[in-house]
Amino acid sequence: MSKIQVSVPKGTRDFGPEVMRKRNYIFGVIAAVYEKFGYQPLETPSMELLSTLTGKYGEEGDKLIFKILNNGAYLSKLSPEDLASLKERGEKFLTSKISEKALRYDLTVPFARFVVQHRNDIVFPFKRYQIQPVWRADNPQRGRYREFYQCDADVVGSPSLLYEAELVQIFDEVLDTLGLPGFSIKINNRKILGGLAEVLGIEDRFASFLIGLDKLDKIGEDGVRKELTERGFEEGTIHKAFEILLDPAAAPQKLDELQAFFSGNATGSKGVEELRFIWTALESAPLRKATLELDLSLARGLDYYTGAIFEVKAHGVQMGSICGGGRYDNLTGIFGLEGVSGVGISFGADRIYDVMEELKLFPQALSRSSDLLITNFGEKEALHGLQLAQELRAAGIKTEIYPEAGKLKKQFEYATKKGIPYLLMLGENEVNTGIYGLKNQLSGEQINGNIQQIISEIKK
Amino acid sequence: MSKIQVSVPKGTRDFGPEVMRKRNYIFGVIAAVYEKFGYQPLETPSMELLSTLTGKYGEEGDKLIFKILNNGAYLSKLSPEDLASLKERGEKFLTSKISEKALRYDLTVPFARFVVQHRNDIVFPFKRYQIQPVWRADNPQRGRYREFYQCDADVVGSPSLLYEAELVQIFDEVLDTLGLPGFSIKINNRKILGGLAEVLGIEDRFASFLIGLDKLDKIGEDGVRKELTERGFEEGTIHKAFEILLDPAAAPQKLDELQAFFSGNATGSKGVEELRFIWTALESAPLRKATLELDLSLARGLDYYTGAIFEVKAHGVQMGSICGGGRYDNLTGIFGLEGVSGVGISFGADRIYDVMEELKLFPQALSRSSDLLITNFGEKEALHGLQLAQELRAAGIKTEIYPEAGKLKKQFEYATKKGIPYLLMLGENEVNTGIYGLKNQLSGEQINGNIQQIISEIKK
Repeated sequence: MSKIQVSVPKGTRDFGPEVMRKRNYIFGVIAAVYEKFGYQPLETPSMELLSTLTGKYGEEGDKLIFKILNNGAYLSKLSPEDLASLKERGEKFLTSKISEKALRYDLTVPFARFVVQHRNDIVFPFKRYQIQPVWRADNPQRGRYREFYQCDADVVGSPSLLYEAELVQIFDEVLDTLGLPGFSIKINNRKILGGLAEVLGIEDRFASFLIGLDKLDKIGEDGVRKELTERGFEEGTIHKAFEILLDPAAAPQKLDELQAFFSGNATGSKGVEELRFIWTALESAPLRKATLELDLSLARGLDYYTGAIFEVKAHGVQMGSICGGGRYDNLTGIFGLEGVSGVGISFGADRIYDVMEELKLFPQALSRSSDLLITNFGEKEALHGLQLAQELRAAGIKTEIYPEAGKLKKQFEYATKKGIPYLLMLGENEVNTGIYGLKNQLSGEQINGNIQQIISEIKK
Repeated sequence: MSKIQVSVPKGTRDFGPEVMRKRNYIFGVIAAVYEKFGYQPLETPSMELLSTLTGKYGEEGDKLIFKILNNGAYLSKLSPEDLASLKERGEKFLTSKISEKALRYDLTVPFARFVVQHRNDIVFPFKRYQIQPVWRADNPQRGRYREFYQCDADVVGSPSLLYEAELVQIFDEVLDTLGLPGFSIKINNRKILGGLAEVLGIEDRFASFLIGLDKLDKIGEDGVRKELTERGFEEGTIHKAFEILLDPAAAPQKLDELQAFFSGNATGSKGVEELRFIWTALESAPLRKATLELDLSLARGLDYYTGAIFEVKAHGVQMGSICGGGRYDNLTGIFGLEGVSGVGISFGADRIYDVMEELKLFPQALSRSSDLLITNFGEKEALHGLQLAQELRAAGIKTEIYPEAGKLKKQFEYATKKGIPYLLMLGENEVNTGIYGLKNQLSGEQINGNIQQIISEIKK
């Protein structure tokens, strides 16, 4: 027995019952809110053609894609010359010969592929949400897995800023519904950053600037100054940029300052105008709980964002961002379909789970497997129990019957270990009278009654 | 534009919004009923170690497992000798060198792996359900896919026949809840077949006999007679077997006949006794809609079944079995953990979907994306619409705002194409008075009222 060794692959996880109930609770809240806002469910296959995925995530990303070996006689595709030169030509060459499919790396590229493939059947603007696992051959570490769920919502086919406003409302409603006591939704606009680059004359090195800026959270202001200096930016440029980006003023005032700063710069002015609309919209329909922050230093690594950028942080815990998103103007361009503007967000389910565990926000009921266990004192009682179980389940009570007649102690232990709060005592006397004992394991109290009284007591 | 070519891998599918809502409806009903009976949710990783999967599905099955290519410098594991002899040694050899993981082929083996791995933490009997996709490199054809969902429930760690009874109740409740007008739950017991083999003296060729018998549905009685003859069974043996197996008598009488037939044969007698218990149990707690059939010819290909065997067929459609299951005494034996008896069932979600489409059983509401579209006549109206949308969503009404001010005709078309039944007319006058027009797209009727009256009208 002790020698039995089985395990899951590195970086993957089993989700047992209690964890599953908690995860399903999070996914359920997210899906329900998405649907309330008119986002439609979509699922794409776990595997995509390698040609769909390759080249979309940069060279480093490509290396993390899990490729699937072709089935059957895949060696026949290799010529004698190929075989002779495998070692020199390397993995990239061999992979191209023996693999045509791969596991999806995110939900964004499959979504773009879906939109392009079904462009003639889709009604635009197309609002979809997608909650599915993705796979990355990353080095596993605390909080980083090789298989994890993404929970995305996107709308494509309209540049309307109303969508930015509603996606912020979705962040707010989901996290408030989940019970988070406080959280900040940080907003920026890529056009502000772009306009700033134009004003400073560093458009040609803008990507490098963003990479440095993106580390503000991790290495702080001084760290970023140093990094930007090393990246070749002059002290004067950095100083001027930081004056704007780290201005501590709050949103409406800061937007006025920015408007003045960008007078004469079309890109920056457009960014200010977009942010102002979102702020106005969210003033007219106030958020439930979120703190809305204009954070001009927010860059987010993904360089496909072209307008709004979002990031959400939970208060009261040490944790990276739990949600993100933004506007992109050319998602489907990678597949040759130009001019489809979109905006989308994503919830980090694993991090939200950790936040909720740490702050003890999960409803108590999720720890419960069944509601009630019917005891088993013999075949006659058990058959009677089958009937009772039907009535109890019809009333919405999750009911089990103990499978074998045996010691009551063992039956109680089973209920305790499984977190079942109620026991229905069912012996010969109970079968004959139709009056049953209901024991509350938590309080230790017992009441007696007919099945309707039992149901009422449990539902109280 | 017309040259854009993207697609999904052969045998895989995108599930668009309406299909997703229908599929989620089926999964939701199955999960809810499983939970009512005390089955707990479980999810295992999509990928398992190749050593976990290989050798569990027979040689043919092994070939259909999707293997995942190792990441990184996987060629370094191949010696010069290995490389020189690749073609001769074949795919099996190369695969063993460059792949350590594979996509799960079913949910049963990962479940067995889970039980063995977590045996010290699990409370037995352990009741779990699992609704996840599986992957098989089968040749795709109508109704057969390379990625499809399985919906399994199993209980392990108890030989109690109460579980057989409750699993039959689960078939009944799920399919009745989904609205199937009629269906047969066929039951047999592997011990009846085993006892018959003993009586006929064909125990040594029992597997071959079952393979022939299993084709009864496909090739009919004469076909099976022929097949069994070809498999070397004598006419007398076949005749005697068929006399028992195809006896048209109904359950209670047939069980009496079988009891007499098996007097002196322990295996067959045990099978009769087990079946009788299940029949008695389901008489004392009657089924809602299912027709219960004792079908002695039911064998099911899987030779790990040792007790009860189940199969469900829908009435009124041409379709193979939509559910199956049975008792197995040694599931975890493949991983070295002996003596864990279990019984489980599975719903064929794709087939149930097809049955429900054919019989038009899906609720009308599943065709609907959102409930209501708020029109957009300009920024001021749209901002007012954002407030209204919050109230409507809080009342549980799925609400969208049309993203851009524009022609009403275009906005109506959007609602029509997306199956949105209600439109809220929101112009300057409405903003000022707080009295809105609600148009029902189906009936063409329009009512006017404040937001509470609008909500009441939609919820009617």
